[in-house]
Amino acid sequence: MNDVLQQLAATLAARRQADPDKSYVASLHHKGLNKILEKVGEEATEVILAAKDAAAGGDRNAVIGEVADLWFHSMVMLSHLEMDVDDVMRCLGDRFGISGLDEKAARDTR
Amino acid sequence: MNDVLQQLAATLAARRQADPDKSYVASLHHKGLNKILEKVGEEATEVILAAKDAAAGGDRNAVIGEVADLWFHSMVMLSHLEMDVDDVMRCLGDRFGISGLDEKAARDTR
Amino acid sequence: MNDVLQQLAATLAARRQADPDKSYVASLHHKGLNKILEKVGEEATEVILAAKDAAAGGDRNAVIGEVADLWFHSMVMLSHLEMDVDDVMRCLGDRFGISGLDEKAARDTR
Amino acid sequence: MNDVLQQLAATLAARRQADPDKSYVASLHHKGLNKILEKVGEEATEVILAAKDAAAGGDRNAVIGEVADLWFHSMVMLSHLEMDVDDVMRCLGDRFGISGLDEKAARDTR
Repeated sequence: MNDVLQQLAATLAARRQADPDKSYVASLHHKGLNKILEKVGEEATEVILAAKDAAAGGDRNAVIGEVADLWFHSMVMLSHLEMDVDDVMRCLGDRFGISGLDEKAARDTR
Repeated sequence: MNDVLQQLAATLAARRQADPDKSYVASLHHKGLNKILEKVGEEATEVILAAKDAAAGGDRNAVIGEVADLWFHSMVMLSHLEMDVDDVMRCLGDRFGISGLDEKAARDTR
Repeated sequence: MNDVLQQLAATLAARRQADPDKSYVASLHHKGLNKILEKVGEEATEVILAAKDAAAGGDRNAVIGEVADLWFHSMVMLSHLEMDVDDVMRCLGDRFGISGLDEKAARDTR
Repeated sequence: MNDVLQQLAATLAARRQADPDKSYVASLHHKGLNKILEKVGEEATEVILAAKDAAAGGDRNAVIGEVADLWFHSMVMLSHLEMDVDDVMRCLGDRFGISGLDEKAARDTR
């Protein structure tokens, strides 16, 4: 598994229990699933706008930041539903022909 | 970096040059950025619907599959714009306080 | 009420009972709410892309067509939920200070 | 044309020139097309969530309100691009077999 994604998932799990007045993540959980899904929808729109602007010569870094936001809020949603980002990685690996053996070998060397 | 994401990025880069009649990824690149962004928007909607259904007692695996699809098409978009998923991971790490040193240490052991 | 929207609502209500193999509207109802909502999400993305392209000098008619598609699928959704587009018009009128009296007067002359 | 939509289009055109600190519509124009399109994306997501909740027994009025918001922001976008909601109505009429003659007749009786 991705070190960053693994660490982020652990951070998200910890912050879920934090004070909603102090933690953005806790505030999202407190507001509930609809609020989290609104953020997923918003960030998808922002990815699309940033990509159009970058393709027209605008800021390329904005695309990276918006994809990070989209994936981040996807992970908050997974955390809210008590799902595991590892399963998303496994699904991506399975679908796109990335060998489980290769992946296992890669894991074993960590 | 995530082994699956790294391998998927490499696979996407290779398939970009494939025959659009034989490769879904090549067909997306051939149709262009708008088509790829339409897929990002579609998959975001499907994540939202799957999450609502799962929260109401429906299929939880569907959520994993839809997030995988959303992230996959985000990566096709990055590939189309010649951007690097590593930068997304770095951005996530920077924003959410995941130490670059820790990450570097993790990388060094691979 | 808008003559076009009124007539379209009546058309949609009639087609809801049609053969799903012959009517696009009936096929959407047959596939169910999620399919209809996927279309709402897709068309919203297409509006966004068309607007960006028009603002960059592209086809302006495409924006009109995509807004028509978005509103059309919104109306299929209302029909599926047995809701009335008149209520949407009333809500728009109420929120944006369009006098109910003026509207009533306009209705009375029809 | 719809009386409400016509009046709303006129209101939107007038407010475009208002003080962005006092008018929400003027503030959207001031922030620019991307901000307006973000709102279109957000409201589409809120329509989808409200429809799912209504179908599960939740508040039906929320769906009406969210469709109103989605159409409202679509109309702000049309106004920003100097496009005419009448063309959207014409497009809907043309596509869905609503006779121009019937519509003209209906207009003539207003």
